[in-house]
Amino acid sequence: MLLESLREEVLHANREIARRGLAPHTFGNASGIDRSGAEPLVVIKPSGVDYATLTPADLVVTDLDGKIVEGSLRPSSDLDTHTLLYRAFPQIGGIVHTHSEFATSWAQAGRPIPCLGTTHADYFHGQVPVTEPLTAEEVAEAYVRNTGAVIVRRFRSEGLDPVAVPGVLVAGHAPFAWGKSAADAVEHADVLEYIARLAFRSVLLNPAANEIPAYVSEHHYLRKHGPKATYGQR
Amino acid sequence: MLLESLREEVLHANREIARRGLAPHTFGNASGIDRSGAEPLVVIKPSGVDYATLTPADLVVTDLDGKIVEGSLRPSSDLDTHTLLYRAFPQIGGIVHTHSEFATSWAQAGRPIPCLGTTHADYFHGQVPVTEPLTAEEVAEAYVRNTGAVIVRRFRSEGLDPVAVPGVLVAGHAPFAWGKSAADAVEHADVLEYIARLAFRSVLLNPAANEIPAYVSEHHYLRKHGPKATYGQR
Amino acid sequence: MLLESLREEVLHANREIARRGLAPHTFGNASGIDRSGAEPLVVIKPSGVDYATLTPADLVVTDLDGKIVEGSLRPSSDLDTHTLLYRAFPQIGGIVHTHSEFATSWAQAGRPIPCLGTTHADYFHGQVPVTEPLTAEEVAEAYVRNTGAVIVRRFRSEGLDPVAVPGVLVAGHAPFAWGKSAADAVEHADVLEYIARLAFRSVLLNPAANEIPAYVSEHHYLRKHGPKATYGQR
Amino acid sequence: MLLESLREEVLHANREIARRGLAPHTFGNASGIDRSGAEPLVVIKPSGVDYATLTPADLVVTDLDGKIVEGSLRPSSDLDTHTLLYRAFPQIGGIVHTHSEFATSWAQAGRPIPCLGTTHADYFHGQVPVTEPLTAEEVAEAYVRNTGAVIVRRFRSEGLDPVAVPGVLVAGHAPFAWGKSAADAVEHADVLEYIARLAFRSVLLNPAANEIPAYVSEHHYLRKHGPKATYGQR
Repeated sequence: MLLESLREEVLHANREIARRGLAPHTFGNASGIDRSGAEPLVVIKPSGVDYATLTPADLVVTDLDGKIVEGSLRPSSDLDTHTLLYRAFPQIGGIVHTHSEFATSWAQAGRPIPCLGTTHADYFHGQVPVTEPLTAEEVAEAYVRNTGAVIVRRFRSEGLDPVAVPGVLVAGHAPFAWGKSAADAVEHADVLEYIARLAFRSVLLNPAANEIPAYVSEHHYLRKHGPKATYGQR
Repeated sequence: MLLESLREEVLHANREIARRGLAPHTFGNASGIDRSGAEPLVVIKPSGVDYATLTPADLVVTDLDGKIVEGSLRPSSDLDTHTLLYRAFPQIGGIVHTHSEFATSWAQAGRPIPCLGTTHADYFHGQVPVTEPLTAEEVAEAYVRNTGAVIVRRFRSEGLDPVAVPGVLVAGHAPFAWGKSAADAVEHADVLEYIARLAFRSVLLNPAANEIPAYVSEHHYLRKHGPKATYGQR
Repeated sequence: MLLESLREEVLHANREIARRGLAPHTFGNASGIDRSGAEPLVVIKPSGVDYATLTPADLVVTDLDGKIVEGSLRPSSDLDTHTLLYRAFPQIGGIVHTHSEFATSWAQAGRPIPCLGTTHADYFHGQVPVTEPLTAEEVAEAYVRNTGAVIVRRFRSEGLDPVAVPGVLVAGHAPFAWGKSAADAVEHADVLEYIARLAFRSVLLNPAANEIPAYVSEHHYLRKHGPKATYGQR
Repeated sequence: MLLESLREEVLHANREIARRGLAPHTFGNASGIDRSGAEPLVVIKPSGVDYATLTPADLVVTDLDGKIVEGSLRPSSDLDTHTLLYRAFPQIGGIVHTHSEFATSWAQAGRPIPCLGTTHADYFHGQVPVTEPLTAEEVAEAYVRNTGAVIVRRFRSEGLDPVAVPGVLVAGHAPFAWGKSAADAVEHADVLEYIARLAFRSVLLNPAANEIPAYVSEHHYLRKHGPKATYGQR
């Protein structure tokens, strides 16, 4: 069996989606990528299978074009979004898609999540962006792949760094989050839901709430992520 | 004992209502129908009995006029709504009524739930409709049966297909959901609550939030339900 | 030990307050009354004691003037509200006070809970009323007793029947609920919290949401409580 | 090992932060102070360590300048806020910092929490204040220490007593709470979250909701905290 430890990690990330309540039913999926070989390989959850019964052998291995390399089950129906993101963002090693309650509500409202506090700034540098809706042509041509394409387009048009902004809201759909590994991606999906909850309440309490100043968000982000990080044990 | 496997299924659906937190106290009921015989038979929960102590033998079997065929307990006080829906919608095999928190809030607000995202579109084709209030005459004449009648009237007047729209909000009351079986109905009741939660937050964040374009909702609905379904393992 | 079975019932009601999440910390208390003797006797929770460690012997027995008849602990600091309500409403046998989250939010907002749906109408006939604030004189003279007095004043001024309206919101404070027993009172406190949640969401979704017509609320209330009740097994 | 019982108490308070759901991930920390020696000593959680695996020996002991006296791990990155507060408020013995959901939402909205009810008045005398944002200079100079400085400045400018107002919202950040011990501080952090939830719903229901009159809040506060306290068993 190919990529046994990556399979374990991806399986664990899929289970974390359920354990943390980020996706009811089977609305959610996690993948990871191994970029060490000549041909990068993606490990992803099969489609519509209950998290509780998943085993490492159920996971599907594909190449970056989505061709199945190993596995007898059909891969997640969102596979083409994952592979497109892996191609566009070479820095990332794991992707998680959820329909978590508050992040999805912002996605449905078509609003980016403003950076109203340090909880947000510790993980996301600036707003959590929201994509444009897909056009009728994009849906007809390749709906799932173009879901990835509108994400990448938003990052390119705003000059966003997917390392500093490890997630996005797809308009009228739901969030995607990523990170250096599948474990990192699920952590970001979970934090994204938390900051979506905080921001939801904050904007109801104060529709004119200000984003925190750049000098604060910069400080927080660098405290956890910069070369002089002071947070945690290192 | 008649219809043993249907009793088990209906009992399970009733327990799922409680387990998923869709109806506090005894505000909820599930039924199923067996249409295989000359006379269709409905299995329904008895009235006001705690889910925890229900046994298959406690369930009540009636015909489509609500006449008790087997059972010593009084059937759910909502029986006449169920039988009317089974008569009007021959495609359905199970019905679930809950007072789940967010769906009931929309019903009390008298607003249909707009289709703001793909979570909704995967299960409900278009808005979740809300009925007209019952008139004083309808209440006096046959309150429970006429609750079914206003549901059917809404579906007829808008030309809705109960397979594509597997649920409804009764104005000033609460939701009903249905499906090809009691298990399917409880799944739809649960999804209905989830999309009611998402839409509640979305409209507070953006009162002018747009429904997703028909070409997206069409795509999502057909992806799970159409003849070329690509979701899950088949 | 006096009133052993009433002690058990009141202890159970106090534990239910905690189990149902109706009062964090020790913000809550339940009492019951035995009106069978020449002198009615009230059983109430001691003050500031954790629900988990309460025993029947910890409960305090008082007369209707609040004089301790049996018990070594100090009674709940809300005792005088309970005794005043028992004197004013001879039909009731149990009282529960909570600071449950949504009912308290309505009390703090100073708004009665409108009857927006049948969940409400099944238990409360018409609005859940809110009291006037206490005056400075009333607070200085006898704060706890006068909390009962403003409740009774509201019921008298609106001609409300405490059997048909088994609870109230004290403005700037929190709810009290009652019933024919302590068990009944805790059930009403729990339903009151649920209808407060539903109504909160409904008025946010539709600030102009209409109360359900009297002919519907009448029907629902009588279905559960009238002489021709059709709900449950009887 | 220095201060063994204080370590146990601080460890317990840190675990309570997690158990009560006041801080997801590792967003939170508790400390305590021993003022009995010539040199006061602070015990605080190490940085970025999971609550579940913390042991008393992992805790860090520092002096009031933040110099490590005992411990091999890095102290919480918020240490300088704690030490500044211990210096400024000699009455307090424990401090808890959380990112609890509703209190943080108020902090992000930049609004103080008005005293809308007696739940609030029992613990906080008057509003829960919100600080000014830090200036760019304050962030650059000493972000964490100046977080303490803006708290103290708010208390000084409004003449607030940290015993009567055992907590604060740091604008664009999150709450800090304190008390006579670490256990007391975590209790106040938990109550602060509860009153933030109540007030959030109350102001949505009634944007013009009035604060309760001073004669009521005075009465409630003194009932629990004054020399003639009537609450609990004493």
